Amino acid sequence: MRVYDLIRRKRDGEAHSAEEIRFLIGEFVAGRMESYQMSAWMMAVFLRGMTDEETGWLTEAMVASGDTVDLSSIPGVKVDKHSTGGVGDTTTLVLAPLAAAAGARVAKMSGRGLGHTGGTLDKLESVPGLRVNLSAEGFLEQVRSIGVAVISQTGSLVPADGKMYALRDVTATVDSIPLIASSIMSKKLACGADAILLDVKFGHGAFMKNLEDGRRLARSMVTIGKRLGRKVRAALSDMEQPLGTHIGNALEFREAIEILQGQRADSALAQVACELAAHLLEMAGLQPDLSAARSEAGRLIRTGAAAEKMRELIGAQGGDARVVDDPGLLPTASHQEDFSAPESGYVASLQAETLGRAAMVLGAGRLRKDDPIDHAVGLVLHKRLGDQVEAGEPLLTFHANDPSLLEISRDLVTEAISIAAAPPGLRPLIEEVVS
Amino acid sequence: MRVYDLIRRKRDGEAHSAEEIRFLIGEFVAGRMESYQMSAWMMAVFLRGMTDEETGWLTEAMVASGDTVDLSSIPGVKVDKHSTGGVGDTTTLVLAPLAAAAGARVAKMSGRGLGHTGGTLDKLESVPGLRVNLSAEGFLEQVRSIGVAVISQTGSLVPADGKMYALRDVTATVDSIPLIASSIMSKKLACGADAILLDVKFGHGAFMKNLEDGRRLARSMVTIGKRLGRKVRAALSDMEQPLGTHIGNALEFREAIEILQGQRADSALAQVACELAAHLLEMAGLQPDLSAARSEAGRLIRTGAAAEKMRELIGAQGGDARVVDDPGLLPTASHQEDFSAPESGYVASLQAETLGRAAMVLGAGRLRKDDPIDHAVGLVLHKRLGDQVEAGEPLLTFHANDPSLLEISRDLVTEAISIAAAPPGLRPLIEEVVS
Repeated sequence: MRVYDLIRRKRDGEAHSAEEIRFLIGEFVAGRMESYQMSAWMMAVFLRGMTDEETGWLTEAMVASGDTVDLSSIPGVKVDKHSTGGVGDTTTLVLAPLAAAAGARVAKMSGRGLGHTGGTLDKLESVPGLRVNLSAEGFLEQVRSIGVAVISQTGSLVPADGKMYALRDVTATVDSIPLIASSIMSKKLACGADAILLDVKFGHGAFMKNLEDGRRLARSMVTIGKRLGRKVRAALSDMEQPLGTHIGNALEFREAIEILQGQRADSALAQVACELAAHLLEMAGLQPDLSAARSEAGRLIRTGAAAEKMRELIGAQGGDARVVDDPGLLPTASHQEDFSAPESGYVASLQAETLGRAAMVLGAGRLRKDDPIDHAVGLVLHKRLGDQVEAGEPLLTFHANDPSLLEISRDLVTEAISIAAAPPGLRPLIEEVVS
Repeated sequence: MRVYDLIRRKRDGEAHSAEEIRFLIGEFVAGRMESYQMSAWMMAVFLRGMTDEETGWLTEAMVASGDTVDLSSIPGVKVDKHSTGGVGDTTTLVLAPLAAAAGARVAKMSGRGLGHTGGTLDKLESVPGLRVNLSAEGFLEQVRSIGVAVISQTGSLVPADGKMYALRDVTATVDSIPLIASSIMSKKLACGADAILLDVKFGHGAFMKNLEDGRRLARSMVTIGKRLGRKVRAALSDMEQPLGTHIGNALEFREAIEILQGQRADSALAQVACELAAHLLEMAGLQPDLSAARSEAGRLIRTGAAAEKMRELIGAQGGDARVVDDPGLLPTASHQEDFSAPESGYVASLQAETLGRAAMVLGAGRLRKDDPIDHAVGLVLHKRLGDQVEAGEPLLTFHANDPSLLEISRDLVTEAISIAAAPPGLRPLIEEVVS
């Protein structure tokens, strides 16, 4: 078997065998397939596509390129959740303690934010003292004892993905359904959970710009997971506007705490987090059906069990658990300034990606992997799509530490928001669930 | 302008502007565009194609990546010829002295053989003492004084092509019409001739496996040349069987000499070489029409003027010109052995590529650029497609220096040749001329 011939086969639109894909990924990770060959092959995959079978084999080969996490020492059903990345998407911070409070075992490895989308680890690290780099044994021990841990993914999992993604990023081969699906699923499968819930965002602020693409990605990932014997569901959720009202690390953590404390049950973030939690509980067999699972999630918030699980999670990872009851202990920005509605009418656009960038320029996000971030800064929205506003009424508040950055941020917000005479059509928060 | 965005544009099937292509090639040659980006872009070109305009701009950008040859100090019309490469294709060795004898100025830079196709330089170097690495001034001076020089191409011409070809060769992006056309034409244009004759081979032994692909390549190259102000024609010639009867460097040189001496006027090689010479003479304005040009070519062979020009060419480049009258001075192989017809009938296949490989394994060709070659060895065919043969009659003769290599060569010949009860349909030697 020769790498050259496999590039040629994919170029000509042929389907690979399992052996061929295993060989290709093996050669690449071993350094015997050159990066210029991998980039040519991935461009051929981008333009010629892959069957579900090929995508499954690719995922398996990527998983086999590195270590896998063995969760068998943890009793009970292990659950995991992945979001394709959004703006103001604080779902994990609500969902993880909520699902653990309901009896699920949440062994979650997470990532940092890049570009306009935030990362769960950065949000967690806004809690004073909290550590995300636990040892493998410490991670398992914490899940065994309190049912939940959220740590940073180790480099030894799926090394093929890191190498491939670095190339895709500079050769315009990121937006390929089989390459995205295998990248996400290889990492989820390597993490070892029995039940995996995928949150596929679509719309302006998301990777997938429309429902149809989101649906294709969701179906592909669910198919991969089932082929490999896992329980998998994928929710398609709208990202035309930020999900939460808060954008920025400590700000989003504060919003998650408020939801866990039962203060914002009607908010979009609370609704989505509870709905996703319900799916996880049903998938894990902890609740008989979705309806019962929804009631259980609501009950755990009302009784304070979810907030208590958050206190345990923070404490176990070395953080100051008092933040759950006193969010003032989180870092706060020195400077706050409102952005007012330029005219009266209805909020007609609230573009998530552009608002994400407006928070990023204040220091909430990073352009490159090693850029530092400022946990305190960001935006807090006071309105959502379709809300009626009066001219001069505050639409959002900037939280900044460096007021000189406000001008660029304000320009981005101006670009992101529009007011119209009539309310826009609104989508449901979760369009559908693929299973 | 960013390399990433240009890869994306071509990936999405968009057409580049002249500026974009200039930028891309400039960045690549300067080392600011990575090889994995170039290979991804070339795969996108392979699968999405390029317009004639884009292919022209690419050719210009490649020419601009290095030096160009200034032929303006040579009076008269400068002509050049290029073959896309075949087996037993000794056309240049006949055509160059013939056209020069007719008054054309033949300033030819040529290449070495690779794989199953021979290279003009290797054939020339089978003449004892002959040098092909002349200085730029020595090259021009020789063309001014005797009207013809054939030397090796310098590395400073079209460096973009060498870098791109090395990548295409290992990423399955060789067989792309715009990439082949720009590669060939950039080198021809950089060599500075006024009139360029392209010999596009198609069939089993050629790059282009069928007439339609050959025609597309021919049209693309003629369009490029015209856009850049040159006279260009492209002949489409058949490569289902080797053109000449001799395959191997000294053997092919001997065949060329015999044709220049008027001994094989009816052979396929003689006919093709004279027809191509006639086109060159008409293009150069040295003859009023093709009919007159054909007569002139025949006359120059009969009078010995073409053979005399070959003596001058060899002498000027330091070789032993006596080989023209005494081919026994060329290197000869120690061992000769016939391959006999296994049955009676008509020669139904004589696959050029496989016969080229049969000569290569004897030492006539090289797999890698720096492999040594044996000038003496090769094959001499006694039959052509459609000839009637008796069982046991010699079909060809092996010329070998290492008899232990004969077995593999014989296996390849067995694979290349078939005998049938009825004669096969035959194509004309030159199918058409695109201008």
